[in-house]
Order: sequence, then structure tokens, then C-alpha cells
Amino acid sequence: MSTMDVAKRYVELVKEQKNEEALEELFAQDAVSVEPVAPPGQDRTKRGVAEIRAKGEWWIQNHIVHGAEVEGPYPHDDRFAVHFTYDITFKPENKRFTMNEIGLFTVKDGKITKEEFFYPT
Amino acid sequence: MSTMDVAKRYVELVKEQKNEEALEELFAQDAVSVEPVAPPGQDRTKRGVAEIRAKGEWWIQNHIVHGAEVEGPYPHDDRFAVHFTYDITFKPENKRFTMNEIGLFTVKDGKITKEEFFYPT
Repeated sequence: MSTMDVAKRYVELVKEQKNEEALEELFAQDAVSVEPVAPPGQDRTKRGVAEIRAKGEWWIQNHIVHGAEVEGPYPHDDRFAVHFTYDITFKPENKRFTMNEIGLFTVKDGKITKEEFFYPT
Repeated sequence: MSTMDVAKRYVELVKEQKNEEALEELFAQDAVSVEPVAPPGQDRTKRGVAEIRAKGEWWIQNHIVHGAEVEGPYPHDDRFAVHFTYDITFKPENKRFTMNEIGLFTVKDGKITKEEFFYPT
């Protein structure tokens, strides 16, 4: 698949909250996922699909999603960007807020090899 | 200035449509600016502040801006992203449309050394 094909499919799945399917279908086994800062007690970089899946599961277990908007994809060569806006409650603190971030994805040989998230820390 | 200081100042100036001031104040002299595709008759990469300024002047001369939204900045290490939404008319074709794109900026030694624009082509 071309970068734009991967990008469109990623956005299609994530809009339906099928992040797990996106990971299985579109990510390289050794893909890396990088946050701007390390979550408490975690590394900021996850290496490989298993670690990325575990991060996603942690996120789902700890948040209630009241609303989500996914804008994009915005391509440039072998990369694409996506703008995420989530209205969520962080369950451990019962704190509701809007999470606004950009994801930057790198594609190689039809698979996502890197995702990097951009947001104020 | 830190990357976040540069990022905030960039967004502040661009929200006021002070792109020329942003270029003078925040960009390295040898900064590069890269579009996903080449505009007709132009190179997709502009090298140095003079070429970037000329691109900006071409853009201003050829568009009417009816409305603009600048969201961000979204930082990650030495880079930051900005989401631009412009309601514009392309004057040569008298065609009004919404331009929706992500800018990705790289900062080194307190100056923007690279800007890359992401949008469907």
C-alpha cells in the first residue's frame, strides 16, 4: 500500500475506535511509538507491537472517552500527520479534559514503522 | 529560546498574520521550507529565508484570506507541529476553498531550521 493508502486506512479504523485493528493491520512488528514525555513509571518509547498494544490497553483502562474527533490524514512523502481531539475523563483522578494532539506516522514498505505524538507537556 | 518558546512565539505571530515577522525573528538564515508537492513552475523546497519570503509573498498576492485558524503549538523534543485551517480564495481561479494542513517545524539553537507542510495532494 502507498503511504496515503495506509494513512486513509489508519484514520478510517481509528475513527471507529478500532486502534487494536489498526495496530495489527498497519504497523510493522518492530514499530516504535514515542511520547513527548514518559508517563509516570513508564518509558516514553515503546518498541514493537506488543509494547504499543500494552500502552493502548493501559490507556483504554484508564480513560472514559466522551467524544473523539480525528482529522486527517495529512501526508508528506513517506509520513502522514493526524490531529486527534479527545474529550476524556482520566479515571484514576476522575478528571475530565480535552486532549488535543498531533500524531506523526512514518511508513516504510507499506507499514507504519514509527508513530510520534506531539502535545504540550 | 527553548523549542517551546520558539513555538509559542511562532503561533502568536502567525495568528496575527505576521508571517514576515515570524520569518525574520525565528528562522535560521539557511532554513528550508518543504511542500508535499511542487507548486506549478516552482521547486517544492525553498532554501534560505529569501526564497521562503518570496514564497510567502507569492501566496499573499494570490489568495484572499476570509478566515484563519491556527491551532497549537504541539511540541515533541526539538520539533513542534501547528494545525492551520484557512478559508481562502485562490485569486487566479476565483476559487474559494478551505485549506487544512499541518506544519512541522524543527528548531536548532533557538531558530527554526526546517518547516515541512503536510496536506493531501
